[in-house]
Amino acid sequence: MFNLKVNPRFGDIDALGHVNNTVFPIWFEMARKPVMQIFDPELTLENFPLIMAHNDFDYLSPIYFKFEVEIKTWISKIGTKSFTVYHEAWQEGKLCTKGNCVIVYIIDGQTTPLTDDIKKILSEHMVE
Amino acid sequence: MFNLKVNPRFGDIDALGHVNNTVFPIWFEMARKPVMQIFDPELTLENFPLIMAHNDFDYLSPIYFKFEVEIKTWISKIGTKSFTVYHEAWQEGKLCTKGNCVIVYIIDGQTTPLTDDIKKILSEHMVE
Amino acid sequence: MFNLKVNPRFGDIDALGHVNNTVFPIWFEMARKPVMQIFDPELTLENFPLIMAHNDFDYLSPIYFKFEVEIKTWISKIGTKSFTVYHEAWQEGKLCTKGNCVIVYIIDGQTTPLTDDIKKILSEHMVE
Amino acid sequence: MFNLKVNPRFGDIDALGHVNNTVFPIWFEMARKPVMQIFDPELTLENFPLIMAHNDFDYLSPIYFKFEVEIKTWISKIGTKSFTVYHEAWQEGKLCTKGNCVIVYIIDGQTTPLTDDIKKILSEHMVE
Repeated sequence: MFNLKVNPRFGDIDALGHVNNTVFPIWFEMARKPVMQIFDPELTLENFPLIMAHNDFDYLSPIYFKFEVEIKTWISKIGTKSFTVYHEAWQEGKLCTKGNCVIVYIIDGQTTPLTDDIKKILSEHMVE
Repeated sequence: MFNLKVNPRFGDIDALGHVNNTVFPIWFEMARKPVMQIFDPELTLENFPLIMAHNDFDYLSPIYFKFEVEIKTWISKIGTKSFTVYHEAWQEGKLCTKGNCVIVYIIDGQTTPLTDDIKKILSEHMVE
Repeated sequence: MFNLKVNPRFGDIDALGHVNNTVFPIWFEMARKPVMQIFDPELTLENFPLIMAHNDFDYLSPIYFKFEVEIKTWISKIGTKSFTVYHEAWQEGKLCTKGNCVIVYIIDGQTTPLTDDIKKILSEHMVE
Repeated sequence: MFNLKVNPRFGDIDALGHVNNTVFPIWFEMARKPVMQIFDPELTLENFPLIMAHNDFDYLSPIYFKFEVEIKTWISKIGTKSFTVYHEAWQEGKLCTKGNCVIVYIIDGQTTPLTDDIKKILSEHMVE
Protein backbone atom coordinates (compact mmCIF):
# COMPACT_ATOMS: atom_id res chain seq x y z
CA MET A 1 0.00 0.00 0.00
CA PHE A 2 1.11 3.52 -0.78
CA ASN A 3 0.12 6.21 1.67
CA LEU A 4 -0.32 9.97 1.23
CA LYS A 5 -1.52 12.52 3.76
CA VAL A 6 -3.19 15.64 2.39
CA ASN A 7 -4.77 18.58 4.11
CA PRO A 8 -7.92 19.97 2.44
CA ARG A 9 -7.35 23.42 1.01
CA PHE A 10 -9.68 26.39 1.60
CA GLY A 11 -10.58 26.46 -2.09
CA ASP A 12 -11.24 22.69 -2.14
CA ILE A 13 -14.36 23.33 -0.08
CA ASP A 14 -17.32 24.15 -2.28
CA ALA A 15 -20.63 25.85 -1.55
CA LEU A 16 -21.90 22.68 0.15
CA GLY A 17 -19.18 23.04 2.81
CA HIS A 18 -17.23 19.94 1.89
CA VAL A 19 -14.48 18.95 -0.52
CA ASN A 20 -15.68 19.26 -4.11
CA ASN A 21 -15.74 16.09 -6.20
CA THR A 22 -13.24 17.50 -8.71
CA VAL A 23 -10.56 17.40 -5.98
CA PHE A 24 -10.40 13.60 -5.71
CA PRO A 25 -8.88 12.96 -9.15
CA ILE A 26 -6.19 15.47 -8.14
CA TRP A 27 -5.50 13.83 -4.77
CA PHE A 28 -5.50 10.36 -6.33
CA GLU A 29 -3.07 11.54 -9.03
CA MET A 30 -0.79 12.84 -6.28
CA ALA A 31 -1.07 9.47 -4.57
CA ARG A 32 0.02 7.62 -7.73
CA LYS A 33 3.41 9.33 -7.89
CA PRO A 34 5.18 6.22 -6.45
CA VAL A 35 3.34 4.10 -9.02
CA MET A 36 4.59 6.40 -11.79
CA GLN A 37 8.08 6.05 -10.37
CA ILE A 38 7.99 2.29 -11.04
CA PHE A 39 7.84 3.18 -14.74
CA ASP A 40 9.93 6.37 -14.71
CA PRO A 41 12.40 5.96 -11.82
CA GLU A 42 14.05 9.36 -12.36
CA LEU A 43 10.65 11.07 -12.86
CA THR A 44 11.95 12.86 -15.95
CA LEU A 45 8.58 12.45 -17.74
CA GLU A 46 10.43 11.84 -21.01
CA ASN A 47 8.63 9.17 -23.02
CA PHE A 48 6.35 8.61 -20.06
CA PRO A 49 4.67 5.26 -20.85
CA LEU A 50 1.35 5.42 -18.98
CA ILE A 51 -2.02 6.66 -20.19
CA MET A 52 -5.28 6.57 -18.28
CA ALA A 53 -8.13 4.70 -19.99
CA HIS A 54 -10.79 4.90 -17.29
CA ASN A 55 -11.43 6.10 -13.79
CA ASP A 56 -14.37 6.05 -11.42
CA PHE A 57 -15.21 7.43 -8.01
CA ASP A 58 -17.74 6.57 -5.30
CA TYR A 59 -18.54 9.35 -2.85
CA LEU A 60 -19.61 7.65 0.37
CA SER A 61 -19.35 10.44 2.90
CA PRO A 62 -18.35 14.13 2.76
CA ILE A 63 -14.83 15.29 3.59
CA TYR A 64 -14.48 18.49 5.61
CA PHE A 65 -11.86 21.23 5.81
CA LYS A 66 -10.79 20.59 9.37
CA PHE A 67 -8.97 17.27 9.40
CA GLU A 68 -6.17 15.69 7.46
CA VAL A 69 -7.09 13.11 4.82
CA GLU A 70 -5.26 9.86 4.21
CA ILE A 71 -5.15 8.47 0.69
CA LYS A 72 -4.46 4.73 0.60
CA THR A 73 -3.43 3.32 -2.77
CA TRP A 74 -3.11 -0.25 -3.96
CA ILE A 75 -2.83 -2.14 -7.22
CA SER A 76 -6.09 -4.06 -7.65
CA LYS A 77 -5.59 -5.81 -10.99
CA ILE A 78 -2.66 -6.60 -13.26
CA GLY A 79 -3.64 -7.26 -16.87
CA THR A 80 -1.58 -7.97 -19.96
CA LYS A 81 -1.09 -4.40 -21.17
CA SER A 82 -2.79 -2.49 -18.37
CA PHE A 83 -3.29 -2.44 -14.62
CA THR A 84 -5.80 -1.01 -12.18
CA VAL A 85 -5.03 1.26 -9.24
CA TYR A 86 -7.50 1.41 -6.36
CA HIS A 87 -7.61 4.44 -4.04
CA GLU A 88 -9.38 5.17 -0.78
CA ALA A 89 -9.69 8.56 0.95
CA TRP A 90 -10.14 8.38 4.71
CA GLN A 91 -10.86 11.18 7.18
CA GLU A 92 -11.23 10.72 10.94
CA GLY A 93 -11.37 6.94 10.67
CA LYS A 94 -14.06 6.93 7.98
CA LEU A 95 -13.80 5.77 4.38
CA CYS A 96 -15.21 8.76 2.48
CA THR A 97 -14.34 8.27 -1.20
CA LYS A 98 -13.01 5.32 -3.14
CA GLY A 99 -12.12 4.86 -6.77
CA ASN A 100 -10.29 2.98 -9.47
CA CYS A 101 -8.23 3.92 -12.45
CA VAL A 102 -7.24 1.74 -15.36
CA ILE A 103 -3.83 2.62 -16.71
CA VAL A 104 -2.49 1.39 -20.03
CA TYR A 105 1.19 0.77 -20.75
CA ILE A 106 2.17 2.48 -24.00
CA ILE A 107 5.55 2.54 -25.69
CA ASP A 108 6.07 4.51 -28.91
CA GLY A 109 2.34 5.05 -29.16
CA GLN A 110 1.56 1.31 -28.97
CA THR A 111 -0.08 -0.58 -26.13
CA THR A 112 2.64 -2.91 -24.91
CA PRO A 113 2.68 -5.98 -22.65
CA LEU A 114 3.83 -5.27 -19.09
CA THR A 115 7.18 -6.98 -18.48
CA ASP A 116 7.50 -9.66 -15.82
CA ASP A 117 9.73 -7.34 -13.79
CA ILE A 118 7.08 -4.64 -13.74
CA LYS A 119 4.34 -7.15 -12.94
CA LYS A 120 6.39 -8.40 -10.01
CA ILE A 121 6.83 -4.90 -8.57
CA LEU A 122 3.16 -4.07 -9.07
CA SER A 123 2.16 -7.35 -7.41
CA GLU A 124 3.95 -6.29 -4.22
CA HIS A 125 1.32 -3.57 -3.80
CA MET A 126 -1.80 -5.66 -4.45
CA VAL A 127 -4.87 -5.00 -2.34
CA GLU A 128 -5.67 -8.03 -0.14
CA MET B 1 -29.06 18.05 -24.84
CA PHE B 2 -27.07 20.79 -23.15
CA ASN B 3 -24.08 22.14 -24.99
CA LEU B 4 -20.92 23.85 -23.76
CA LYS B 5 -17.90 24.98 -25.75
CA VAL B 6 -14.58 25.15 -23.90
CA ASN B 7 -11.12 26.00 -25.06
CA PRO B 8 -8.30 23.95 -23.49
CA ARG B 9 -6.11 26.05 -21.25
CA PHE B 10 -2.30 26.08 -21.40
CA GLY B 11 -2.12 24.57 -17.91
CA ASP B 12 -4.67 21.86 -18.81
CA ILE B 13 -2.03 20.26 -21.02
CA ASP B 14 0.18 17.92 -19.04
CA ALA B 15 3.61 16.48 -19.74
CA LEU B 16 2.10 14.04 -22.26
CA GLY B 17 1.03 16.98 -24.44
CA HIS B 18 -2.70 16.51 -24.03
CA VAL B 19 -5.43 17.54 -21.62
CA ASN B 20 -4.86 15.95 -18.20
CA ASN B 21 -7.55 13.59 -16.94
CA THR B 22 -8.26 15.80 -13.90
CA VAL B 23 -9.66 18.46 -16.25
CA PHE B 24 -12.71 16.45 -17.38
CA PRO B 25 -14.53 16.48 -14.02
CA ILE B 26 -14.09 20.27 -14.11
CA TRP B 27 -15.41 20.64 -17.67
CA PHE B 28 -18.31 18.28 -16.96
CA GLU B 29 -19.18 20.23 -13.81
CA MET B 30 -19.24 23.42 -15.90
CA ALA B 31 -21.51 21.65 -18.36
CA ARG B 32 -24.00 20.69 -15.61
CA LYS B 33 -24.74 24.29 -14.68
CA PRO B 34 -28.09 24.23 -16.57
CA VAL B 35 -28.92 20.96 -14.78
CA MET B 36 -28.19 22.62 -11.44
CA GLN B 37 -30.44 25.48 -12.49
CA ILE B 38 -33.40 23.09 -12.71
CA PHE B 39 -33.04 22.63 -8.94
CA ASP B 40 -31.81 26.11 -8.00
CA PRO B 41 -33.30 28.47 -10.61
CA GLU B 42 -31.72 31.61 -9.12
CA LEU B 43 -28.36 29.80 -8.63
CA THR B 44 -28.08 31.16 -5.09
CA LEU B 45 -26.56 27.87 -3.84
CA GLU B 46 -28.56 28.21 -0.60
CA ASN B 47 -29.76 24.76 0.53
CA PHE B 48 -28.48 23.36 -2.73
CA PRO B 49 -30.17 19.95 -2.94
CA LEU B 50 -27.79 17.87 -5.09
CA ILE B 51 -24.91 15.65 -4.01
CA MET B 52 -22.76 13.50 -6.26
CA ALA B 53 -22.69 9.81 -5.38
CA HIS B 54 -20.59 8.45 -8.24
CA ASN B 55 -18.87 9.45 -11.42
CA ASP B 56 -16.84 7.67 -14.05
CA PHE B 57 -14.84 8.60 -17.13
CA ASP B 58 -13.67 6.75 -20.22
CA TYR B 59 -10.73 8.28 -22.06
CA LEU B 60 -11.03 7.21 -25.68
CA SER B 61 -8.72 9.61 -27.45
CA PRO B 62 -6.46 12.49 -26.35
CA ILE B 63 -7.60 16.09 -26.47
CA TYR B 64 -5.10 18.69 -27.63
CA PHE B 65 -4.51 22.37 -26.91
CA LYS B 66 -5.27 23.67 -30.34
CA PHE B 67 -8.97 23.17 -30.95
CA GLU B 68 -12.16 24.01 -29.12
CA VAL B 69 -13.91 21.19 -27.28
CA GLU B 70 -17.63 20.61 -27.23
CA ILE B 71 -19.20 19.08 -24.14
CA LYS B 72 -22.56 17.44 -24.82
CA THR B 73 -24.68 16.65 -21.79
CA TRP B 74 -27.81 14.56 -21.41
CA ILE B 75 -29.84 12.94 -18.68
CA SER B 76 -29.39 9.18 -19.07
CA LYS B 77 -31.46 7.79 -16.19
CA ILE B 78 -34.14 9.10 -13.84
CA GLY B 79 -34.45 7.13 -10.62
CA THR B 80 -36.62 7.63 -7.56
CA LYS B 81 -34.25 9.78 -5.52
CA SER B 82 -31.40 10.20 -7.97
CA PHE B 83 -30.62 10.70 -11.63
CA THR B 84 -27.69 10.12 -13.96
CA VAL B 85 -26.05 12.72 -16.18
CA TYR B 86 -24.10 11.54 -19.22
CA HIS B 87 -21.39 13.73 -20.78
CA GLU B 88 -19.35 13.52 -23.96
CA ALA B 89 -16.32 15.63 -24.88
CA TRP B 90 -15.77 16.05 -28.61
CA GLN B 91 -12.84 17.67 -30.45
CA GLU B 92 -12.54 18.00 -34.22
CA GLY B 93 -15.45 15.63 -34.84
CA LYS B 94 -14.12 12.89 -32.56
CA LEU B 95 -15.60 11.60 -29.32
CA CYS B 96 -12.62 11.78 -26.96
CA THR B 97 -13.95 11.32 -23.41
CA LYS B 98 -17.31 10.23 -22.05
CA GLY B 99 -18.61 9.79 -18.55
CA ASN B 100 -21.52 9.56 -16.18
CA CYS B 101 -22.37 11.01 -12.83
CA VAL B 102 -25.03 9.84 -10.42
CA ILE B 103 -26.57 12.72 -8.53
CA VAL B 104 -28.73 12.29 -5.44
CA TYR B 105 -31.56 14.64 -4.46
CA ILE B 106 -31.17 15.65 -0.82
CA ILE B 107 -33.39 17.95 1.23
CA ASP B 108 -32.52 18.76 4.86
CA GLY B 109 -29.84 16.07 4.76
CA GLN B 110 -32.29 13.33 3.66
CA THR B 111 -32.44 11.63 0.29
CA THR B 112 -35.78 12.71 -1.12
CA PRO B 113 -37.96 11.48 -4.01
CA LEU B 114 -37.71 13.61 -7.14
CA THR B 115 -41.02 15.39 -7.76
CA ASP B 116 -43.02 14.71 -10.89
CA ASP B 117 -42.33 18.26 -12.06
CA ILE B 118 -38.58 17.76 -11.80
CA LYS B 119 -38.79 14.34 -13.47
CA LYS B 120 -40.70 15.92 -16.34
CA ILE B 121 -38.05 18.62 -16.88
CA LEU B 122 -35.22 16.10 -16.64
CA SER B 123 -36.97 13.80 -19.11
CA GLU B 124 -36.87 16.56 -21.73
CA HIS B 125 -33.09 16.16 -21.83
CA MET B 126 -32.90 12.35 -22.04
CA VAL B 127 -30.28 10.82 -24.27
CA GLU B 128 -31.87 8.95 -27.17
CA MET C 1 -8.81 44.02 -26.52
CA PHE C 2 -9.36 40.29 -26.27
CA ASN C 3 -12.61 39.13 -24.77
CA LEU C 4 -13.56 35.87 -23.03
CA LYS C 5 -16.86 34.95 -21.39
CA VAL C 6 -16.70 32.36 -18.59
CA ASN C 7 -19.37 30.96 -16.36
CA PRO C 8 -18.32 30.32 -12.74
CA ARG C 9 -18.23 26.63 -11.93
CA PHE C 10 -19.85 25.09 -8.83
CA GLY C 11 -16.43 24.11 -7.48
CA ASP C 12 -15.03 27.62 -8.12
CA ILE C 13 -17.19 28.89 -5.26
CA ASP C 14 -15.45 28.49 -1.94
CA ALA C 15 -16.74 28.45 1.63
CA LEU C 16 -17.19 32.24 1.51
CA GLY C 17 -19.79 31.85 -1.25
CA HIS C 18 -17.80 33.53 -3.99
CA VAL C 19 -15.20 32.59 -6.57
CA ASN C 20 -11.97 31.54 -4.87
CA ASN C 21 -8.88 33.63 -5.62
CA THR C 22 -7.04 30.64 -7.15
CA VAL C 23 -9.54 30.68 -10.03
CA PHE C 24 -8.43 34.03 -11.50
CA PRO C 25 -4.99 32.87 -12.68
CA ILE C 26 -6.83 30.07 -14.46
CA TRP C 27 -9.39 32.38 -16.11
CA PHE C 28 -6.67 34.86 -17.07
CA GLU C 29 -4.58 32.06 -18.58
CA MET C 30 -7.61 31.02 -20.65
CA ALA C 31 -7.98 34.63 -21.74
CA ARG C 32 -4.36 34.79 -22.95
CA LYS C 33 -4.82 32.04 -25.52
CA PRO C 34 -5.04 34.56 -28.41
CA VAL C 35 -1.87 36.22 -27.06
CA MET C 36 -0.13 32.83 -27.08
CA GLN C 37 -1.31 32.36 -30.65
CA ILE C 38 0.67 35.43 -31.72
CA PHE C 39 3.81 33.47 -30.79
CA ASP C 40 2.62 29.95 -31.67
CA PRO C 41 0.09 30.37 -34.50
CA GLU C 42 -0.62 26.66 -34.82
CA LEU C 43 -0.79 26.23 -31.01
CA THR C 44 1.43 23.16 -31.21
CA LEU C 45 3.24 24.13 -27.97
CA GLU C 46 6.53 22.90 -29.48
CA ASN C 47 9.38 25.19 -28.41
CA PHE C 48 6.80 27.51 -26.87
CA PRO C 49 8.73 30.77 -26.34
CA LEU C 50 6.92 32.44 -23.43
CA ILE C 51 7.61 32.18 -19.71
CA MET C 52 5.84 34.07 -16.96
CA ALA C 53 8.09 36.14 -14.72
CA HIS C 54 5.51 37.84 -12.52
CA ASN C 55 1.81 38.20 -11.99
CA ASP C 56 -0.38 40.10 -9.57
CA PHE C 57 -4.08 40.35 -8.78
CA ASP C 58 -6.29 42.92 -7.06
CA TYR C 59 -9.57 41.62 -5.70
CA LEU C 60 -11.97 44.55 -5.70
CA SER C 61 -15.34 42.88 -5.34
CA PRO C 62 -16.54 39.27 -5.01
CA ILE C 63 -17.71 37.28 -8.01
CA TYR C 64 -20.75 35.04 -7.54
CA PHE C 65 -21.92 31.78 -9.08
CA LYS C 66 -24.99 33.14 -10.77
CA PHE C 67 -23.84 35.38 -13.57
CA GLU C 68 -21.45 35.11 -16.48
CA VAL C 69 -18.06 36.80 -16.14
CA GLU C 70 -16.33 38.76 -18.85
CA ILE C 71 -12.53 38.74 -18.97
CA LYS C 72 -11.08 41.71 -20.84
CA THR C 73 -7.45 41.43 -21.84
CA TRP C 74 -5.02 44.03 -23.17
CA ILE C 75 -1.32 44.48 -23.64
CA SER C 76 -0.24 47.17 -21.19
CA LYS C 77 3.51 47.39 -21.79
CA ILE C 78 5.94 46.26 -24.49
CA GLY C 79 9.53 45.96 -23.31
CA THR C 80 12.67 44.81 -25.07
CA LYS C 81 12.50 41.13 -24.16
CA SER C 82 9.21 41.01 -22.31
CA PHE C 83 5.70 42.41 -22.32
CA THR C 84 2.89 42.89 -19.83
CA VAL C 85 -0.66 41.63 -20.18
CA TYR C 86 -3.41 43.36 -18.21
CA HIS C 87 -6.66 41.55 -17.39
CA GLU C 88 -9.98 42.65 -15.92
CA ALA C 89 -12.81 40.38 -14.71
CA TRP C 90 -16.26 41.98 -14.87
CA GLN C 91 -19.57 40.63 -13.58
CA GLU C 92 -22.91 42.41 -13.89
CA GLY C 93 -21.29 45.67 -14.99
CA LYS C 94 -18.80 45.76 -12.12
CA LEU C 95 -15.02 45.45 -12.28
CA CYS C 96 -14.33 42.71 -9.70
CA THR C 97 -10.72 41.60 -10.20
CA LYS C 98 -7.84 43.02 -12.19
CA GLY C 99 -4.28 41.89 -12.67
CA ASN C 100 -1.09 41.94 -14.68
CA CYS C 101 1.36 39.38 -15.87
CA VAL C 102 4.85 39.96 -17.14
CA ILE C 103 5.80 37.51 -19.85
CA VAL C 104 9.35 36.98 -21.07
CA TYR C 105 10.27 35.95 -24.61
CA ILE C 106 12.66 33.01 -24.52
CA ILE C 107 14.24 31.16 -27.43
CA ASP C 108 16.54 28.18 -26.82
CA GLY C 109 16.56 28.99 -23.12
CA GLN C 110 17.73 32.60 -23.66
CA THR C 111 15.76 35.78 -23.16
CA THR C 112 15.46 37.22 -26.63
CA PRO C 113 14.46 40.63 -28.00
CA LEU C 114 10.92 40.81 -29.31
CA THR C 115 10.95 41.29 -33.08
CA ASP C 116 9.46 44.40 -34.64
CA ASP C 117 6.74 42.26 -36.21
CA ILE C 118 5.70 40.88 -32.84
CA LYS C 119 5.86 44.32 -31.24
CA LYS C 120 3.58 45.63 -33.96
CA ILE C 121 0.98 42.92 -33.40
CA LEU C 122 1.13 43.37 -29.61
CA SER C 123 0.76 47.14 -30.00
CA GLU C 124 -2.58 46.63 -31.75
CA HIS C 125 -3.98 45.36 -28.44
CA MET C 126 -2.62 48.08 -26.14
CA VAL C 127 -4.82 49.32 -23.35
CA GLU C 128 -5.79 52.98 -23.86
CA MET D 1 7.77 30.47 9.95
CA PHE D 2 5.22 27.93 8.77
CA ASN D 3 6.45 25.05 6.68
CA LEU D 4 4.69 22.84 4.13
CA LYS D 5 6.15 20.11 1.97
CA VAL D 6 4.38 19.38 -1.32
CA ASN D 7 5.15 16.99 -4.10
CA PRO D 8 4.43 18.28 -7.62
CA ARG D 9 1.59 16.40 -9.26
CA PHE D 10 1.73 14.97 -12.80
CA GLY D 11 -0.98 17.40 -13.92
CA ASP D 12 0.83 20.37 -12.34
CA ILE D 13 3.47 20.06 -15.05
CA ASP D 14 2.49 21.96 -18.16
CA ALA D 15 3.66 21.76 -21.75
CA LEU D 16 6.88 23.58 -20.82
CA GLY D 17 7.85 20.68 -18.56
CA HIS D 18 7.63 22.57 -15.28
CA VAL D 19 5.01 23.46 -12.71
CA ASN D 20 2.39 25.79 -14.21
CA ASN D 21 2.05 29.23 -12.66
CA THR D 22 -1.57 28.59 -11.67
CA VAL D 23 -0.35 26.00 -9.15
CA PHE D 24 1.43 28.46 -6.84
CA PRO D 25 -1.73 30.21 -5.58
CA ILE D 26 -3.00 26.73 -4.70
CA TRP D 27 0.18 25.70 -2.88
CA PHE D 28 0.36 29.03 -1.06
CA GLU D 29 -3.28 28.70 0.00
CA MET D 30 -2.48 25.24 1.40
CA ALA D 31 0.45 26.78 3.25
CA ARG D 32 -1.78 29.43 4.88
CA LYS D 33 -3.96 26.87 6.67
CA PRO D 34 -2.17 27.52 10.01
CA VAL D 35 -2.65 31.26 9.46
CA MET D 36 -6.37 30.66 8.91
CA GLN D 37 -6.44 28.63 12.10
CA ILE D 38 -5.36 31.71 14.09
CA PHE D 39 -8.70 33.25 13.08
CA ASP D 40 -10.84 30.09 13.00
CA PRO D 41 -9.28 27.70 15.53
CA GLU D 42 -11.79 24.91 14.90
CA LEU D 43 -11.59 25.42 11.10
CA THR D 44 -15.37 25.33 10.83
CA LEU D 45 -15.35 28.07 8.14
CA GLU D 46 -18.50 29.57 9.69
CA ASN D 47 -18.31 33.37 9.51
CA PHE D 48 -14.76 33.05 8.27
CA PRO D 49 -13.34 36.58 8.73
CA LEU D 50 -10.58 36.80 6.09
CA ILE D 51 -10.77 38.02 2.52
CA MET D 52 -7.90 38.38 0.09
CA ALA D 53 -7.39 41.87 -1.35
CA HIS D 54 -4.23 41.33 -3.38
CA ASN D 55 -1.62 38.76 -4.24
CA ASP D 56 1.49 38.71 -6.37
CA PHE D 57 4.02 36.15 -7.52
CA ASP D 58 7.58 36.29 -8.82
CA TYR D 59 8.73 33.29 -10.82
CA LEU D 60 12.49 33.10 -10.42
CA SER D 61 13.29 29.58 -11.53
CA PRO D 62 11.23 26.63 -12.82
CA ILE D 63 10.04 23.87 -10.51
CA TYR D 64 10.21 20.31 -11.84
CA PHE D 65 8.20 17.15 -11.24
CA LYS D 66 10.94 15.14 -9.64
CA PHE D 67 11.68 16.70 -6.28
CA GLU D 68 9.67 17.73 -3.27
CA VAL D 69 8.95 21.44 -2.83
CA GLU D 70 9.10 23.31 0.45
CA ILE D 71 6.76 26.25 0.98
CA LYS D 72 8.00 28.65 3.65
CA THR D 73 5.44 31.11 4.97
CA TRP D 74 5.85 34.19 7.13
CA ILE D 75 3.87 37.26 8.12
CA SER D 76 5.59 40.22 6.49
CA LYS D 77 3.42 43.16 7.58
CA ILE D 78 0.73 43.76 10.20
CA GLY D 79 -1.55 46.69 9.40
CA THR D 80 -4.58 48.06 11.20
CA LYS D 81 -7.26 46.01 9.44
CA SER D 82 -5.13 43.80 7.25
CA PHE D 83 -1.89 41.85 7.18
CA THR D 84 0.49 40.52 4.56
CA VAL D 85 1.63 36.93 4.19
CA TYR D 86 4.90 36.22 2.38
CA HIS D 87 5.56 32.82 0.80
CA GLU D 88 8.60 31.20 -0.75
CA ALA D 89 8.70 27.95 -2.76
CA TRP D 90 12.05 26.14 -2.65
CA GLN D 91 13.18 23.07 -4.59
CA GLU D 92 16.58 21.41 -4.26
CA GLY D 93 18.02 24.30 -2.26
CA LYS D 94 16.88 26.96 -4.72
CA LEU D 95 14.32 29.71 -4.20
CA CYS D 96 12.04 29.27 -7.23
CA THR D 97 8.91 31.34 -6.61
CA LYS D 98 8.04 33.96 -4.04
CA GLY D 99 4.92 35.97 -3.41
CA ASN D 100 2.77 38.05 -1.09
CA CYS D 101 -0.87 38.21 -0.26
CA VAL D 102 -2.70 40.98 1.52
CA ILE D 103 -5.51 39.67 3.67
CA VAL D 104 -8.23 41.87 5.14
CA TYR D 105 -10.01 41.17 8.43
CA ILE D 106 -13.76 41.37 7.93
CA ILE D 107 -16.50 40.86 10.51
CA ASP D 108 -20.17 41.06 9.48
CA GLY D 109 -19.12 42.41 6.10
CA GLN D 110 -17.10 45.29 7.60
CA THR D 111 -13.34 45.70 7.62
CA THR D 112 -12.42 45.50 11.28
CA PRO D 113 -9.29 46.38 13.28
CA LEU D 114 -7.13 43.39 14.17
CA THR D 115 -7.23 42.83 17.94
CA ASP D 116 -4.06 43.10 19.98
CA ASP D 117 -4.24 39.37 20.70
CA ILE D 118 -4.30 38.53 17.01
CA LYS D 119 -1.52 41.02 16.26
CA LYS D 120 0.60 39.37 18.95
CA ILE D 121 0.13 35.90 17.46
CA LEU D 122 0.82 37.14 13.93
CA SER D 123 3.95 38.94 15.12
CA GLU D 124 5.41 35.63 16.31
CA HIS D 125 5.64 34.59 12.65
CA MET D 126 7.20 37.75 11.22
CA VAL D 127 9.85 37.38 8.55
CA GLU D 128 13.23 38.61 9.81
